[in-house]
Amino acid sequence: MKASNLLLKTLRDIPSDAENISHRLLLRAGYVQQVAAGIFSLLPIGNRSISKIRKIVREEMNLSGCAEVNMPVIQPKELWEESGRAETFFPPLANFKDRRERTLVIAPTHEETATSMIRSFVSSYRDLPITIYQIQTKFRDETRPRGGLLRVREFEMKDAYSFDVDEKGLDKSFEIMVKTYKKIFARCGLDVVIVDADSGGIGGKESKEFVLIADSGDDTILISPDESYAANLEKAEFIKNDYSEKKILDKELFETKHINTIEKLSDFCKLPKNKIAKSVIYNSDGEIIIVTIRADYDVNETKLRNILGSKDLKKASTQEAINAGFIPGYASPIDKRNIKSVIDNSIELGSNYIAGANKEHFHLKNVNYPRDFKSEIVGDIAEAKEGFQSPNNSGELISKKGIEVGHVFKLGYTYSEVMGADFTDKNGDNKSILMGCYGIGIGRLLAAAIEANHDDNGINLPPSISPFTVNLIGINLDEEKVKNKCNKIYDLLLRNGIDVLFDDRDLLPGVKFKDSDLVGFPVRIIISKKNFEKNDIEIKSRNDSNSNYVSETKLVDYINNIINI
Amino acid sequence: MKASNLLLKTLRDIPSDAENISHRLLLRAGYVQQVAAGIFSLLPIGNRSISKIRKIVREEMNLSGCAEVNMPVIQPKELWEESGRAETFFPPLANFKDRRERTLVIAPTHEETATSMIRSFVSSYRDLPITIYQIQTKFRDETRPRGGLLRVREFEMKDAYSFDVDEKGLDKSFEIMVKTYKKIFARCGLDVVIVDADSGGIGGKESKEFVLIADSGDDTILISPDESYAANLEKAEFIKNDYSEKKILDKELFETKHINTIEKLSDFCKLPKNKIAKSVIYNSDGEIIIVTIRADYDVNETKLRNILGSKDLKKASTQEAINAGFIPGYASPIDKRNIKSVIDNSIELGSNYIAGANKEHFHLKNVNYPRDFKSEIVGDIAEAKEGFQSPNNSGELISKKGIEVGHVFKLGYTYSEVMGADFTDKNGDNKSILMGCYGIGIGRLLAAAIEANHDDNGINLPPSISPFTVNLIGINLDEEKVKNKCNKIYDLLLRNGIDVLFDDRDLLPGVKFKDSDLVGFPVRIIISKKNFEKNDIEIKSRNDSNSNYVSETKLVDYINNIINI
Repeated sequence: MKASNLLLKTLRDIPSDAENISHRLLLRAGYVQQVAAGIFSLLPIGNRSISKIRKIVREEMNLSGCAEVNMPVIQPKELWEESGRAETFFPPLANFKDRRERTLVIAPTHEETATSMIRSFVSSYRDLPITIYQIQTKFRDETRPRGGLLRVREFEMKDAYSFDVDEKGLDKSFEIMVKTYKKIFARCGLDVVIVDADSGGIGGKESKEFVLIADSGDDTILISPDESYAANLEKAEFIKNDYSEKKILDKELFETKHINTIEKLSDFCKLPKNKIAKSVIYNSDGEIIIVTIRADYDVNETKLRNILGSKDLKKASTQEAINAGFIPGYASPIDKRNIKSVIDNSIELGSNYIAGANKEHFHLKNVNYPRDFKSEIVGDIAEAKEGFQSPNNSGELISKKGIEVGHVFKLGYTYSEVMGADFTDKNGDNKSILMGCYGIGIGRLLAAAIEANHDDNGINLPPSISPFTVNLIGINLDEEKVKNKCNKIYDLLLRNGIDVLFDDRDLLPGVKFKDSDLVGFPVRIIISKKNFEKNDIEIKSRNDSNSNYVSETKLVDYINNIINI
Repeated sequence: MKASNLLLKTLRDIPSDAENISHRLLLRAGYVQQVAAGIFSLLPIGNRSISKIRKIVREEMNLSGCAEVNMPVIQPKELWEESGRAETFFPPLANFKDRRERTLVIAPTHEETATSMIRSFVSSYRDLPITIYQIQTKFRDETRPRGGLLRVREFEMKDAYSFDVDEKGLDKSFEIMVKTYKKIFARCGLDVVIVDADSGGIGGKESKEFVLIADSGDDTILISPDESYAANLEKAEFIKNDYSEKKILDKELFETKHINTIEKLSDFCKLPKNKIAKSVIYNSDGEIIIVTIRADYDVNETKLRNILGSKDLKKASTQEAINAGFIPGYASPIDKRNIKSVIDNSIELGSNYIAGANKEHFHLKNVNYPRDFKSEIVGDIAEAKEGFQSPNNSGELISKKGIEVGHVFKLGYTYSEVMGADFTDKNGDNKSILMGCYGIGIGRLLAAAIEANHDDNGINLPPSISPFTVNLIGINLDEEKVKNKCNKIYDLLLRNGIDVLFDDRDLLPGVKFKDSDLVGFPVRIIISKKNFEKNDIEIKSRNDSNSNYVSETKLVDYINNIINI
């Protein structure tokens, strides 16, 4: 194609609200235009990359035996009432009343529609397994959209849904998708880590994230040195150290005037934090609860939310804690009356703790579990950190920042049971279908790829997803000879199936060179009079600082070699 | 692909609310599933056809030098306030408040977004011309969605927008699109007629519709016998007969007791309708107006709306007419006080009319224009009908039913002026950009293609847009030899780039044959033991009632021949 047809306009100024490098580069290189907060148009250049990503995704999904469908963006709210997510989905469902006063929802995801499709068309085990997918627009009304295409409100997602007769089938469908995702990311030139993840608002029991390591990422992941264990922060486990003492001592009240933080208490008592039982007061769906954890660890609120099954979890306010009978700074897991309690299992690996006395300026010594306090809810609610022991005992966890580019879930019966998606098995028994769901954010993938592939001059995407493979630039296009040569080379490349952008704009060569680096074409061809005598074509790879000279006959092979590296 | 992966389930029952044949067939053949009124999911089979249509559209649009973009479905209402369409668009814009209390619109079309994109990136004549396009979801809250994919609420549209420096440029861009559309419809195997059309709610001065002739169509078009003139009903013109008499007689009141319709009046006076001046009372945006037309013609409300520039036009109620001083059945263009009047120019081609006297049971004789009544608004507001003279004098118009599958508009300055999309011309002057817009409804195209291509057995789409080219059916797949042969042929076709569906479902051959005709695969291959001795492959075209037998080595060529016919 020719640049004059492509609205190719790079910006020299970096927009002030663009925090991420991919956001700045997407705007500067003319890939996208912002239309509203978290809502973007793809400009022709950006659309080229996105089209290539879509194509790779479709090819790999089809190869793995998935069937492409297309489910609507606008949906009746009734579908969401069936699944129970009409009121609970977060962020809240964007919706409106149509002209018949029926509430329609702008879909943030498509589990409900997919389940509804399958329950209509699947009746027997013979119809299963099946995996359907689509590439479709979604809308989530995030409070704080940011990072350009990394966290938007309207986005295009490849979402797939698998349907199986049993756990073994689901495991297989899940594994096929994991393999397919690996291929997709590999073809996009991205090196991703697969980590255990929390299932969040989608539901289900097991989930994995595909994370591209990048310092600008929102996600924190924890990996063992040999990468045999990897999980995101919400999910990551670790081996907790045991500080138990043999001798269990008698509980004792002591004065701790103004010693109302863990730091002060540790200093005051001259004891490590692992000798302190820390209590934190939370508000879970309106109920005040007390959480107790060994003070060398912090509470992981995702784990706490999961163990409680709470929808809305936050730290209780000071007033809420006081109203519930707690003395701030001195809250105690003992004498907590009828308040629900959660205990991290680290508490079991220690003894003779210092703990609050729930009395101003007083703590207790030699508090012991379960002698002095207990709870029906004991489990892992501690947050993993760099340096903690990997749960598979493969060394100390390493913390990295990354960007989630794909997410796969074993949903199990979450949707099929409530929505009545079932089938008749070989014995004639009626059973619920086992589901999985699998997502890749298409725009997010592009942004993540840019976060991982850029330099000071601009974007440097892998050839498979760059807007064009070759950028053809002529020096002094108003000279007939140069123009003719450009057109000849342009035709040659097109005929040989090479994706070429001929920069026919009426601009100075320097501007075109800068744009070429900023937009990020893997290969640049420069046609100028000075090379005419040599009869060679000047060619430069985006990753190379020097040009090479290739004869016209060898040009196509030479380019194919560069892009296949 | 294999049918077992494709959710291929045909329905034996015809849904009762499906009026159109394409609607019934799309549901029965498992192309689509209805999710809500006017909202559908594409099932895998339907999605295959749609994907092929999208591909043809993209290839032809790219070949014509257009740049693909992607504009958001969800948009700030402010964009629509800029163009003035926030309140006037019909059907009313679906909208909702986001979590920051900003109103967002679900886009029914993208003129505003396209104009906004161009004004940001185009500054000079050097940046023009440019045509951008996308294939994107839209939502229009039609009151009465019907006809399956023919009139839906959520739909995918290929919309393109051209931007030019002057009229000549716009004409050229418009012509390129007309040519491109012809190619697109031809590649989809559809025979379309290009007709003059009204611009409707989109705005602008000239527009053409691409209409597929089909008895079930919503559109009425009028064509001259040699097809040198073609227009849709809203727009169609014709040569009005002249019935003027030489002698202008004196106006005279006469009694017409209970003669309160044109039919009765014509009978009572023993005069043809062309001797009667008919007056109709309308309500145009709340204003009562009187419209006078020769009674052998009817008012075309689109033309009337255009001549008045009204947004909301309807016949006045009896009470509204009375309140405005008119006597129902006897309304008169004379003595109409200060009421706005529109006169069809047919009135000029007659004399000595019968007209209402605006007095119960009385009419006037020998009413003459402009002696007895006149108006500032005289023009063509008459509806063309079959048998009327073509406006280019090429014979009597023929009326046909059809389905609009494409629409192209010369928008002119409609959007660029109000939204400030301008450029600097060669002389340094600031000018508004001239726009055109061009639409093809993707799902509608599929439905229209089915309306035009089906038989009693089912869908019979042209190979270029049928879900698969070849349907491979094995008789008794549980026999090893049959199964192996099927797999061998399946691999052979795939290797040769032939789009084949292997029906591996555990169903009786008769069911598969019926499905094959219903879904509509251009070519069917039947593998059965009885043909093994012949060593030939049984092959049948969808349009042929008999099978042919082809050797394996000639199979690929044979298929390519069938589908290229």
